[in-house]
Amino acid sequence: MSKLKVLSFAVSADGFGAGADQSLENPVGVNGTDLMSWFHPTRTFNKHVLGSDSGETGPDDDIARMGFENIGAWILGRNMFGPIRGPWPDDSWKGWWGDNPPYHVPVFVLTNYSRDSFEMEGGTTFHFVTGGIEEALDQAKHAAAGKDVRLGGGVATIRAYLAAGLVDEMHLAFVPALLGHGEALFSGLDLKALGYDMTRSQTTPNAMHLFIGKR
Amino acid sequence: MSKLKVLSFAVSADGFGAGADQSLENPVGVNGTDLMSWFHPTRTFNKHVLGSDSGETGPDDDIARMGFENIGAWILGRNMFGPIRGPWPDDSWKGWWGDNPPYHVPVFVLTNYSRDSFEMEGGTTFHFVTGGIEEALDQAKHAAAGKDVRLGGGVATIRAYLAAGLVDEMHLAFVPALLGHGEALFSGLDLKALGYDMTRSQTTPNAMHLFIGKR
Repeated sequence: MSKLKVLSFAVSADGFGAGADQSLENPVGVNGTDLMSWFHPTRTFNKHVLGSDSGETGPDDDIARMGFENIGAWILGRNMFGPIRGPWPDDSWKGWWGDNPPYHVPVFVLTNYSRDSFEMEGGTTFHFVTGGIEEALDQAKHAAAGKDVRLGGGVATIRAYLAAGLVDEMHLAFVPALLGHGEALFSGLDLKALGYDMTRSQTTPNAMHLFIGKR
Repeated sequence: MSKLKVLSFAVSADGFGAGADQSLENPVGVNGTDLMSWFHPTRTFNKHVLGSDSGETGPDDDIARMGFENIGAWILGRNMFGPIRGPWPDDSWKGWWGDNPPYHVPVFVLTNYSRDSFEMEGGTTFHFVTGGIEEALDQAKHAAAGKDVRLGGGVATIRAYLAAGLVDEMHLAFVPALLGHGEALFSGLDLKALGYDMTRSQTTPNAMHLFIGKR
């Protein structure tokens, strides 16, 4: 059965899933790249995001690779798609990732402002959903055709899906870093009360990985 | 120079330093013992808290042992001393730890209600400070006579000392557990803005240890 999964989502020790003040220069917010310290060295990051053959294998890479297995569609919040707020000024912004984004499947972007779908190289098509998180999930599951849907983020989007009890599984990578401020992933959310439990954990030199499932 | 240190303080992945609803039966709050999963197996816990020779050596034990090195006094919040709230009904409550508490030095308990000091077996003397966190720190540093002061907790007490910029060093053990709700250690505190940085980190199979210092 198709599941909605948050995978390879990094959280700082003080609880932030993104830095503050996202901008064109800081896609993950100020100091947000500190969150990627476990992911950037992996072969999976190098292969899927940079298109290179370098990078390390090992437990972090094994876990990162799971983030791309059996994924038939993605859902992204609008801020994860880009730094633009409000109505689209034009169609020129096509994401942070260049001509060949690392998705290679349909990607559903949550937004309050409609925009036509468009296709990129490598099989990624961006669709824009104005009807809310449940409609985006319906469309993504339909597009995924039995495979899983990966909820990419950012923090506000994950919180919305968690609060609605729509996330089936999460893998969070807690990294040894302090951000001080930013977007807090758990603040005001009681994961246990929402029906979530830790199913497995694994520490590596770079992170404490938690695997969380819905009861 | 004598420092104020938070040592071996455990935090759940979702950011709680204690469970909710502390009581005589749940000194660390409901499910709070989940926070001790890294500490309970160590030889240090067995030696210092249980008075036994069992327990495991290894990296967690090496780190736990630092929690008892060069400590000349402790500071505890009242809730860490006991489950009683409001005025002391009598002098019968002498802490959670039996006749020979694991401190063996003067312990300063923050409270709004004065009470006479008393001595336990093994060198632990409990003093009660009604003048606030700075007065407790002054008294503890004086008693420590050049050694460090360990700030034992709980969460509200650590937050008060952090907000005042009085903590010099922290070792936090992030454990792979979800509490759902409880006492959030960082909520609303910006450690970076308060002058704190991570100085070192170490993961073990049971925890992600962060060492934090004041700039």
